[in-house]
Amino acid sequence: MENSKKKVSAITSQEVDFAAWYTDVVKEAKLCEYSSVKGCLNYLPNGYAIWENIQKRLDAKFKETGVENVYLPVLIPESLLQKEKNHIEGFAPEVALVTRGGGEELEENFAIRPTSETLFCDIWKNMVKSYRDLPLVWNQWNSVFRWEKTTRPFLRSREFLWQEGHTLHATAEEAEERTKQMLNVYYDFVTQDLAIPLIVGKKTDSEKFAGAEATYTIESMMKDGKALQSGTSHFFGHGFPDAFDIKYLDKENKLHSAYETSWGMSTRIIGALIMVHGDDNGLVLPPRIAPTQVMIVPIAQHKEGVLDFCKKLEKHLNKVEIRTKLDDSEKSPGFKFANQEVLGIPLRLEIGPKELDEGKIILVRRDTGEKYTCPVDEVDTKILDIFIIMQKEMFEKAKKNLKTNIRTAKSIQDMIDIDKEHSGFIKAMWCGSEECESKIKEETGYGSRCIPFEQETICNHCVYCGKDADKMVIWGKSY
Amino acid sequence: MENSKKKVSAITSQEVDFAAWYTDVVKEAKLCEYSSVKGCLNYLPNGYAIWENIQKRLDAKFKETGVENVYLPVLIPESLLQKEKNHIEGFAPEVALVTRGGGEELEENFAIRPTSETLFCDIWKNMVKSYRDLPLVWNQWNSVFRWEKTTRPFLRSREFLWQEGHTLHATAEEAEERTKQMLNVYYDFVTQDLAIPLIVGKKTDSEKFAGAEATYTIESMMKDGKALQSGTSHFFGHGFPDAFDIKYLDKENKLHSAYETSWGMSTRIIGALIMVHGDDNGLVLPPRIAPTQVMIVPIAQHKEGVLDFCKKLEKHLNKVEIRTKLDDSEKSPGFKFANQEVLGIPLRLEIGPKELDEGKIILVRRDTGEKYTCPVDEVDTKILDIFIIMQKEMFEKAKKNLKTNIRTAKSIQDMIDIDKEHSGFIKAMWCGSEECESKIKEETGYGSRCIPFEQETICNHCVYCGKDADKMVIWGKSY
Repeated sequence: MENSKKKVSAITSQEVDFAAWYTDVVKEAKLCEYSSVKGCLNYLPNGYAIWENIQKRLDAKFKETGVENVYLPVLIPESLLQKEKNHIEGFAPEVALVTRGGGEELEENFAIRPTSETLFCDIWKNMVKSYRDLPLVWNQWNSVFRWEKTTRPFLRSREFLWQEGHTLHATAEEAEERTKQMLNVYYDFVTQDLAIPLIVGKKTDSEKFAGAEATYTIESMMKDGKALQSGTSHFFGHGFPDAFDIKYLDKENKLHSAYETSWGMSTRIIGALIMVHGDDNGLVLPPRIAPTQVMIVPIAQHKEGVLDFCKKLEKHLNKVEIRTKLDDSEKSPGFKFANQEVLGIPLRLEIGPKELDEGKIILVRRDTGEKYTCPVDEVDTKILDIFIIMQKEMFEKAKKNLKTNIRTAKSIQDMIDIDKEHSGFIKAMWCGSEECESKIKEETGYGSRCIPFEQETICNHCVYCGKDADKMVIWGKSY
Repeated sequence: MENSKKKVSAITSQEVDFAAWYTDVVKEAKLCEYSSVKGCLNYLPNGYAIWENIQKRLDAKFKETGVENVYLPVLIPESLLQKEKNHIEGFAPEVALVTRGGGEELEENFAIRPTSETLFCDIWKNMVKSYRDLPLVWNQWNSVFRWEKTTRPFLRSREFLWQEGHTLHATAEEAEERTKQMLNVYYDFVTQDLAIPLIVGKKTDSEKFAGAEATYTIESMMKDGKALQSGTSHFFGHGFPDAFDIKYLDKENKLHSAYETSWGMSTRIIGALIMVHGDDNGLVLPPRIAPTQVMIVPIAQHKEGVLDFCKKLEKHLNKVEIRTKLDDSEKSPGFKFANQEVLGIPLRLEIGPKELDEGKIILVRRDTGEKYTCPVDEVDTKILDIFIIMQKEMFEKAKKNLKTNIRTAKSIQDMIDIDKEHSGFIKAMWCGSEECESKIKEETGYGSRCIPFEQETICNHCVYCGKDADKMVIWGKSY
């Protein structure tokens, strides 16, 4: 296939060094870069445009389920952060602290929000009196700050962009339902729009969110076999609301605990998009999420009529809502092809004097390099048809990779043996003890990704201690 | 007119106390509230939804002019903030400082961004080598932090939401053109979408942005006659770029200074929206920007067919992109009317058994209380017609208020006399000296709002010192 030939010398081959390939793609596609503010990223136009599309589509899905957006402060008083014991233990080591303001030492320090559970509860405690005030289904699109030691573009940085949804309910059942509902929203969005196949399940206790009763997760597999946690939804029970003294009067006028959830997806997902679909020529974006879906490359653009035709076509396609750009720079077509491929633009249209004469257009798919020809007046339909196929085939290709790279282990030795030969996930039974979980990680490098909803019985004993086990866990190495 | 009767006792009348009226409307319409983080606001669903609509429409206008969105860090190293002398003098007293991170004292403190000129320049210095790298036309939607002493909802708070556009150009002419272009984008948006009339002009040197060569502004007048700066666009010349050593090679391979602009509009504009259009019954939103444009209120909703019909109509109107809600709560119609009016929803549809029988719908305008009746099958067109009229008439009403309340002064005594009788703006000549400007403020309370582009010659002498003067300035008291 055409695109198997590496075109951009600045990009390391995936086979040679996957980590270097990733860094090269982020750089060459100008998605983001390290800021002079240590550990923070500059989200550049090409990368931020992907995030804008993610926001747009995901936000619409949220609103269909009744979510309302809000914005709460970037700072959290230290005393507020300390209200829930497990929560502060989880986040205290990572916070950035404001100790001076307006030229003076502050009486109380403020943390830059690492997450906003405490702020939401702090509002709700004044707002919620009666069952009529519930549910509250809120979300905010913002940045959070965690003082990370090591950083990688999109995957781990001190400041990152995300959405954090926070909801409050009258009953545990309703809150649990919302937790699952939002997990499903993430699942639909990531599988359908980002063409990334997922494993869905529950986190083990040691991996759940600080302060949550249960954390649900969608896990994806990168091309190098590593796992990336792609979105989480937490059920808090009434722990947080109780800590903030949020109570409501029910229909019988009795004081009652309220139940909370939160759920988030961050710019990490752009890392998944890169590492699930990308190839040695750069980024490969699924049509639904690509900021630019079509790049028109004129061939022999100085020949009469070529550029005019291309400009008209660009305008027309944008009018019918196919996001299109025209590369009319002075560079050679070969250079332009390589550039469009680095950027991961799903479809390239090649148009030269020959095509004009024949009334035809050449279309080239970014993911497979496949070439199509179609009459000029059918180009809209042809593009939309190809998009549907691309979106489907990109998902299926990634799904095949995921399926092929999940292997089964009945013993810790199985896991060690698999690890020698392969990368990917391992399915294995677990007794439920945190000790076994951490020993497995220590001895094999594989951590528990989740207890998938789709369970199988591989055997009846824990892969580590050999005791009775009825939970199948997905184990993996992770970003 | 119907809405002249005050319906909500919790809202102070504008005539009694305009400031209290403002606070009451913000509270009763649940737009925002003070956070437990001192000086910061919680932007609640009703308020944030207005901001979302502003973002959506303004962002589309930006992109039509070639703007690309980015996101840069929330923190700025102190050393970076100090690179441009005037800039740091303007902002140093207001910054919040992070001095601890990850459990340790930091070697260098970070300011939470009060504005991001320095961060943009810091990126550009590595990115710009040649004239081919220019122009750069970037923007970010974010929050900024300034340690304000006194705060008012939307008008002044320590953290506020805004967009900050930053652009870099090869020539001063191109940068100046961009400065004006963005001012025009603001002008079109505020006058057309928010129905707020404006005075456009240049700030005096003492009122311009810290570090800018020229600041242009759009100024609006609230119902109490006070001014609100509604958007600004700054031309920096090459001061900032030079301070950051941003130089480019021109076509002749000579090293050349670059020219910078920045421009911003913030959540303050929501304050203008409230104070330009609001009345004693609450908020009054122009249809184009209202998150909910139509509220359907069923009359005798327990009578057969009423609720069914209302639900179908709600669905239908949303389908044709008229943003509609149905109030099917157990409250009385009177209560529902008052609620819709507090929220400023432009149009109320009243539907009861009588209307169902006759196949008619009653429509009531929020701004004037005017009632219309129309056959069910013409309701889409009728609504859209009313919206066009409302948008126009709300603008004209506000424009009349602005025009009526600009008065002319030829002496400082004139200004003092006008101030005794009226609120509003004063047009008066100014010699250009900063001393006169500050004396005028001191003695009359009127500060310079701008030197409007549309000049008049009121007289030939400075209103303060009596020396020759050829600049007409708009003076006002401001939020």
